[in-house]
Amino acid sequence: MTQETLEPEVSADDSYKLNNKLISSIRLAVSTADAERLADLLEPLHAADIADMLEQVDEVQRREILVLSTDIIDGEVLSELDEGLREEIIDFLPQKVLSEAVRDLESDDVVDLVEDLGEPQQEAVLEALDDADRVAVEQALSYPEESAGRLMQREFVMAPDHWNVGQAIDYMRANDDLPDQFYHMILVDPRLKPTGYVTLGKLLANRRETKLTLIAEESFRTIPVTQPEDQVAYAFNQYHLISAPVVDQDDRLVGVITIDDAMNVLDEEHEEDILRLAGVGEGRLSDKVISTTRRRFPWLAVNLLTAILASMVISQFEVAISQLVALAVLMPIVASMGGNAGTQSLTVAVRAIATRDLTGSNVWRVIRREVLVGLINGVIFAVVMGIVGVIWFGSINLGLVIAAAMVINLVVAGLAGTVIPVVLEKLKVDPALASGAFVTTVTDVVGFFAFLGLAVIVLL
Amino acid sequence: MTQETLEPEVSADDSYKLNNKLISSIRLAVSTADAERLADLLEPLHAADIADMLEQVDEVQRREILVLSTDIIDGEVLSELDEGLREEIIDFLPQKVLSEAVRDLESDDVVDLVEDLGEPQQEAVLEALDDADRVAVEQALSYPEESAGRLMQREFVMAPDHWNVGQAIDYMRANDDLPDQFYHMILVDPRLKPTGYVTLGKLLANRRETKLTLIAEESFRTIPVTQPEDQVAYAFNQYHLISAPVVDQDDRLVGVITIDDAMNVLDEEHEEDILRLAGVGEGRLSDKVISTTRRRFPWLAVNLLTAILASMVISQFEVAISQLVALAVLMPIVASMGGNAGTQSLTVAVRAIATRDLTGSNVWRVIRREVLVGLINGVIFAVVMGIVGVIWFGSINLGLVIAAAMVINLVVAGLAGTVIPVVLEKLKVDPALASGAFVTTVTDVVGFFAFLGLAVIVLL
Repeated sequence: MTQETLEPEVSADDSYKLNNKLISSIRLAVSTADAERLADLLEPLHAADIADMLEQVDEVQRREILVLSTDIIDGEVLSELDEGLREEIIDFLPQKVLSEAVRDLESDDVVDLVEDLGEPQQEAVLEALDDADRVAVEQALSYPEESAGRLMQREFVMAPDHWNVGQAIDYMRANDDLPDQFYHMILVDPRLKPTGYVTLGKLLANRRETKLTLIAEESFRTIPVTQPEDQVAYAFNQYHLISAPVVDQDDRLVGVITIDDAMNVLDEEHEEDILRLAGVGEGRLSDKVISTTRRRFPWLAVNLLTAILASMVISQFEVAISQLVALAVLMPIVASMGGNAGTQSLTVAVRAIATRDLTGSNVWRVIRREVLVGLINGVIFAVVMGIVGVIWFGSINLGLVIAAAMVINLVVAGLAGTVIPVVLEKLKVDPALASGAFVTTVTDVVGFFAFLGLAVIVLL
Repeated sequence: MTQETLEPEVSADDSYKLNNKLISSIRLAVSTADAERLADLLEPLHAADIADMLEQVDEVQRREILVLSTDIIDGEVLSELDEGLREEIIDFLPQKVLSEAVRDLESDDVVDLVEDLGEPQQEAVLEALDDADRVAVEQALSYPEESAGRLMQREFVMAPDHWNVGQAIDYMRANDDLPDQFYHMILVDPRLKPTGYVTLGKLLANRRETKLTLIAEESFRTIPVTQPEDQVAYAFNQYHLISAPVVDQDDRLVGVITIDDAMNVLDEEHEEDILRLAGVGEGRLSDKVISTTRRRFPWLAVNLLTAILASMVISQFEVAISQLVALAVLMPIVASMGGNAGTQSLTVAVRAIATRDLTGSNVWRVIRREVLVGLINGVIFAVVMGIVGVIWFGSINLGLVIAAAMVINLVVAGLAGTVIPVVLEKLKVDPALASGAFVTTVTDVVGFFAFLGLAVIVLL
């Protein structure tokens, strides 16, 4: 066996994807119960890649891998696993392996691990911790879900703000219990209120007698422990923070949030936005058929209602359709174009709301823009469809009707696609979650009504 | 004026949003040409917030703000601006202000600033740089767009890998030109090949005589200078990197990429995915009407073609529809449900491809799951719609037809929603960009064909 087969293969177009060859080798080792070969294959992998691998094989193979090598599951691998799999694997692990796995994690990672587990697994993990760590985790769990308190780690490095560089360095050299990763020394006053922070780079670059306050960063933000995590992530992204001190109600330092935690939150928020816009809710590739079906059902049910509503509009024009079947042939085009244009506007609006770019002070300008865009594209496609209508069905009037309906529906799409998410946000409803159904209802109803209504007036 | 009115107001539900009150105050100061008041209002704002503010006011107000206080535009504000506005503002700035603004930026930020500018503005910025910086930026621009070479900064801290902690600290104290932000000291061999890195925390925590190689991080990754930026971002996210050395073809250290750059890329990729899935392409809130219209046009044009295709399917059944108008009323429901279910499957597949969770080794399992989910939801909604059909139109056979068509279309939706993005990715076409049109074409055509075809067989 050469070194080469051990390393994830570097392919031209994607060097980080766990490659099929490696997974096949793992499967082969598992099916021949070759524990030694399996260990050789897994050894060079990063925890995140091991977690991904466990997600990609099926349940039976996962069991066999765990039987052959329980010791591949350390705290990091547990942290990296999808929630669904995490429960499955924790159930399967002997308590001793679990204890060792969670003991070397930072407190924020343990909280992240524990908070979505079922009662029995949560108990199992908490029991595995030292008393001091358990108290810390339980305290973190007392903060609201998705708040800064859940996100922060309690391991941080602080110093009185009257110290100088030499004192700070001596303190760190004497301290055996520094966090694995830290980027700032936080300065506090005697009441433990953070007053600034110093980057480690500055500590290293300055002379021992330099006062810490002289080299503290210019801009400095603290985060209230109850702040929702999406706002924390926004602050990290907006102000390019690397780490930020978290304070309690009395402004006392209680923890630190680092950029990797914020990056995770941002990643999850994006994921949620995309999935919600598509009517999927949460959803992971490792979810089972039944839970996936259940999750997608409500959106389809809402869509059925709106589709029936649109059909009821059509049924008002049954007489017209029976007189001129071309109407039935052409009507889905108007509705479909409106639905598409509406989705374009609403996606831009939902994103702009999420990134705080769409606010009360520019909402009218954005609405005007979307309506104008709808008007211009509406006119262009009206001309195209008008011509198609005339050629296909040989009726200039039919061409005019579909053209007029197209303009109306695309303008309405721009309007509804912007106004609906803005209004939903004002009403504290997640616009990503609910806008789609409303907007397509509007464009379907308006599309069918405008086209069939005009047809009745002009053609019959 | 109290301190309170200067700070962005902290509201209960969102403490970071630039509030309307502040923007109104700024508008008032601008309209009364009160430069001093404007300076007071802007002074406490972070560069990112100033950039957001400039994006939220309209073009006339933006000009007036710049006239009243050109000095608010520093390099950071320029970096934070949307591309469209950046050109506008650089055109407007006196060369002297521009020079000062770009001079204090790190090389990666200048590259980011310059790469999307038009020729004349790019010249203006490059001229404003010192000779050494200009060469560095021009060299960075010689790397492919969206590659690690464009993303990296050339300011980094390295040390021979035989040094000890004391030597490293002395070197940094003696060096006046350290980067603003850095998190690791990179160890290199005599050929400048990176061999490991040491976190600043470890440098501070260990005794002067400790060898650097003894405290180097366990896991260490270098990034090839030509690697595409989405893979760089993936590596940062997957392996929780804070910074990573970039190497050239000969494995020599040429730069460093830090997590904030990677976070930006990740953010942009997400944004692109969401917008592409909705058929918007790129698009920012500050875009003008014409460029927005132009950008959305191609997607609407593709949608028109697929809608016409669906209409051609309907037109094959004109006789059936004229005999039974209920078919025209009900047919959009089947198509719409299929379109929705297909979008759900395709969004999950597109995301899973982007996050490298959907690979050759689990594609069949995912397809099976999606088809099963389609089948189960299909059966449920078939029962519902069958009953609705019977009640509404009093025909059991019509109920059976719509129920059967619903099952068929939802199964096809699950299949198409997964297979189409996977195949597109194999063909090196961005699945986020193109899947939507294909999947809805399939669900429209199959929906209309199954429903109307079955109707002809069963009902007529």
